[in-house]
Amino acid sequence: MQFQAQIQIHLRPSVLDPAGVAVQSSLHQLGHTQVQQVRIGKHIQLQLEAPDAETAQKRVGELCDQLLANPVIETYAIRVEPVGS
Amino acid sequence: MQFQAQIQIHLRPSVLDPAGVAVQSSLHQLGHTQVQQVRIGKHIQLQLEAPDAETAQKRVGELCDQLLANPVIETYAIRVEPVGS
Repeated sequence: MQFQAQIQIHLRPSVLDPAGVAVQSSLHQLGHTQVQQVRIGKHIQLQLEAPDAETAQKRVGELCDQLLANPVIETYAIRVEPVGS
Repeated sequence: MQFQAQIQIHLRPSVLDPAGVAVQSSLHQLGHTQVQQVRIGKHIQLQLEAPDAETAQKRVGELCDQLLANPVIETYAIRVEPVGS
């Protein structure tokens, strides 16, 4: 069964986010001063074959731990759905 | 009223995603050959002050058009929720 996975990877709240700080100051310079707490992370989409959603979720978690995320400074959230749902 | 915005920015499907291709081949080398169609984009979180959700959504759309996304090669999806909901 084919599954579509959506993975959000962000720096841990305790880790400084230089990209977020830079974007926030640019937005303020453009006049959007009401924008606060800008944090920038990665959003990864992928498809994978798996017998069921639980296995797909587990496998995507393994992918994150092995390659996609750095558990020391990042957290990740995974959403898995059957393709075509 | 404070709103939390979640913005997903991805390259248009017609645009080659070199980062996605690189990650996919690394995953295959690690033995995850059942993983396909890896696409990597940005996930931006921010907070902003707005009178209501509709205005907040509209303002975040303006931020995307002005600075956060490149409409020529990227698409974006916005989700806005009151802070603390």
